[in-house]
Amino acid sequence: MSGIKFLFICILLCAVIVGGLIKANIFESSENQNYTKVADSILVYSLQEQIGYKWLRELCDIGPRLSGSEQSIQAIKWAENKFIEMGCDSVWLQPVMVPKWVRGNIEEASVTKSKNFVGRPLNIASLGRSVGTNGVVTEAGVIEVKNFSDFKNFTREQVEGKIVFFNEPFDNSLLGTFRGYGKAVQQRAKGAIEASKLGAIAAIVRSVTSKPDNIPHVGTMSAFPDSVKQIPAAAIGVEDAEFLSKLLYEEPDIEIGIELDCANMGEAQSYNVVAEVKGNEFPNEIIVVGGHFDSWDKGHGAHDDGAPCIQTMEVLHQMIKLDLKPKRTIRCVLFINEENGIRGAIEYARLAEENNENHLAAIESDRGAFIPQGFNIEGDDELIDEMQKWLPILNKAKIDWIRKGGSGVDISRIKNVTAKIGFVPDDQRYFDVHHSANDTFESVNPREMQLGTAAITTLTYLISEEGI
Amino acid sequence: MSGIKFLFICILLCAVIVGGLIKANIFESSENQNYTKVADSILVYSLQEQIGYKWLRELCDIGPRLSGSEQSIQAIKWAENKFIEMGCDSVWLQPVMVPKWVRGNIEEASVTKSKNFVGRPLNIASLGRSVGTNGVVTEAGVIEVKNFSDFKNFTREQVEGKIVFFNEPFDNSLLGTFRGYGKAVQQRAKGAIEASKLGAIAAIVRSVTSKPDNIPHVGTMSAFPDSVKQIPAAAIGVEDAEFLSKLLYEEPDIEIGIELDCANMGEAQSYNVVAEVKGNEFPNEIIVVGGHFDSWDKGHGAHDDGAPCIQTMEVLHQMIKLDLKPKRTIRCVLFINEENGIRGAIEYARLAEENNENHLAAIESDRGAFIPQGFNIEGDDELIDEMQKWLPILNKAKIDWIRKGGSGVDISRIKNVTAKIGFVPDDQRYFDVHHSANDTFESVNPREMQLGTAAITTLTYLISEEGI
Repeated sequence: MSGIKFLFICILLCAVIVGGLIKANIFESSENQNYTKVADSILVYSLQEQIGYKWLRELCDIGPRLSGSEQSIQAIKWAENKFIEMGCDSVWLQPVMVPKWVRGNIEEASVTKSKNFVGRPLNIASLGRSVGTNGVVTEAGVIEVKNFSDFKNFTREQVEGKIVFFNEPFDNSLLGTFRGYGKAVQQRAKGAIEASKLGAIAAIVRSVTSKPDNIPHVGTMSAFPDSVKQIPAAAIGVEDAEFLSKLLYEEPDIEIGIELDCANMGEAQSYNVVAEVKGNEFPNEIIVVGGHFDSWDKGHGAHDDGAPCIQTMEVLHQMIKLDLKPKRTIRCVLFINEENGIRGAIEYARLAEENNENHLAAIESDRGAFIPQGFNIEGDDELIDEMQKWLPILNKAKIDWIRKGGSGVDISRIKNVTAKIGFVPDDQRYFDVHHSANDTFESVNPREMQLGTAAITTLTYLISEEGI
Repeated sequence: MSGIKFLFICILLCAVIVGGLIKANIFESSENQNYTKVADSILVYSLQEQIGYKWLRELCDIGPRLSGSEQSIQAIKWAENKFIEMGCDSVWLQPVMVPKWVRGNIEEASVTKSKNFVGRPLNIASLGRSVGTNGVVTEAGVIEVKNFSDFKNFTREQVEGKIVFFNEPFDNSLLGTFRGYGKAVQQRAKGAIEASKLGAIAAIVRSVTSKPDNIPHVGTMSAFPDSVKQIPAAAIGVEDAEFLSKLLYEEPDIEIGIELDCANMGEAQSYNVVAEVKGNEFPNEIIVVGGHFDSWDKGHGAHDDGAPCIQTMEVLHQMIKLDLKPKRTIRCVLFINEENGIRGAIEYARLAEENNENHLAAIESDRGAFIPQGFNIEGDDELIDEMQKWLPILNKAKIDWIRKGGSGVDISRIKNVTAKIGFVPDDQRYFDVHHSANDTFESVNPREMQLGTAAITTLTYLISEEGI
């Protein structure tokens, strides 16, 4: 090779390398600029149009969406129509049988034996899965349990024939309210079962809430083992729990009466609602966004989980409306029966496996529609590092962090997902409304809800374009 | 010097240096541990006891605190008593004369000429400083201004004898609601003055709010220059503003009638409330915490600025209750008359200068009692860098950032303060309630409010112990 030829090749090589570097940088920076622009357009559209908030009003007008209820079926049809109207590529229902528990019309309690308080009503509401009182008032003395973990020390002699009153308060001193909930909810989940093992005839449970009003906060109990007799169980408002505790201190031998006509009615036909916008480069790589579409039957189920479901519905709407043409397929799944069975989540995962579907990521929104904070990721550290590079873009919608953490119940059953992601809004007010008549349309702030929509839509778009 | 002596001295020097380093580290880390412990105790006390939230209920029971009103004086006495009860080292009132504007009993508007809508009421509320309509209904045609900055192009011919309807909407597409407010509030501050210059006989202004309900959001106007005739001015609910705009589009020659009996009643005696916990090392170095104690007269003035004032009152309470014995003097100031005069702030600053007081820092809370986010600092970059080292401690109370930014109106007049600091909670819901009947006790969440208390108390303690 002559010296000149060699020099020429060297120059050529340098030019290619430098050119490549420049191109890579320009590409990267123009990509980023593009993402920033898209994130801006998502944010402005979300806040200005407040489409999801308008949908939430319609959904709440239908009523709460207890699994197996007529209203839950109306809501499923409403969502199916919304997906069709917005122009999704495919919309379908996944049939799934769900447990049907009904509250009935009677849930009453009052003091029946006391010096001064006979007839004093107590504000209660049946717990999910509870049996009724067979058309009679269950009347008995009351034994209070101030800390559920102490109940293991109680004896059959203390408990037999009694109504057990689980009265462990929500620990408001903890910064994270989910921690407070996790501690206090054990008495709701397992109290009646443990009480029944020692011969109790009913259980009442202090509402698991950060708000000291008198609204009962309901929720499901764990299923009674076959060997344990099912007893009626109800939540009681915090103010009345405090009253009852004080009364028991003054008069340990009071009695109260409870009447419930809730019942387990076997199973009912229900559905997951599924809709897709197909990816135009990798249509077989699926990104799921979703929440659970069933709710408790007090209030509207607005924060839990109506508004969060709608945030994920709006992801599809914005992909279409803002003409974002995602590279990968974005699928919204409204899972049925999270509250008392997880049947929808199980069935979705079963079908995904059966159909050999490739789930790249799944994003769940089930912590209320409050101001966005971050995303929890179930995935390896390298992946989390990679995703954290998107924070400057996600920050536009108030996302401050991406870190390792639990995602959500409904996406937990799907197998072989590269990243399971939980949207994390602020949690300070969640347990004020959770599972109660406080969880109404009016309790949702449109800007907070729509910022969540923007955060989830932007993350979904980034995953779709960049892959993970 | 012999070789051995030299070696010995070297070893000694090394020992001293290494020892010094170790000691410095140990000291630093044990100090930090101590601060972390204090921050924890402040957080737990704030969330568990919710003292400030209980005080807020008492304050809101007194009613709103319009400058010069009887209720504002009752509230001042209430605060003075609270400071005395909690055991402050000194408590005093600073007399200050404030403008006395009264709303009166009549603020009514309706359509008086139209094909179909004669008699249709419009939901209005007088703006602060407005004159009344002299016992009659001011009736005239209406000219709409959709964007205040366009009003400079309007002519006397268009405006003379008319009621000018400023109808610029709040820009909900902006992430920061204070930016939206800053844009739209110009029409409230200056609209009536500019309208009067062109011969208008009254002005109505679309409520400056992020919430599209029909509650009028009031607030003050700028003072009319002597050369400009004062005309009556009122805020109108957003729904009625939309109605009126649509009606004007269909029937440009409609007329409306307005009757107001608000009035400027000269001046009234009022007071700043001041209380101190003396520093036990540097009693002459003062850290001010505070907010403005007056409010508008719709709702309770709970977020603006009742709860934030109480957050700063609780700083003193916690210093005493948790036995924190601050090195520097911590002074809580409840400034009167921020809303329509800033007289309290001016008088406080005048007295501070007259008495040659040394103000190390001043922290203002006047952005509602929502979930904490950060602190804005008016101070040099080096100081901000220094303070950012406290973030891991402040993060316990949800403080994510410390950065350069505006502090607050009431501390703005104090001279020679090393750091003026503004507490910044989340702003997404603030302008839903601001200056309106929505700003009630019920709109404040106890956990959010108490986290703000913890954030401000922790920062105050750090400044007191570390200096700046």
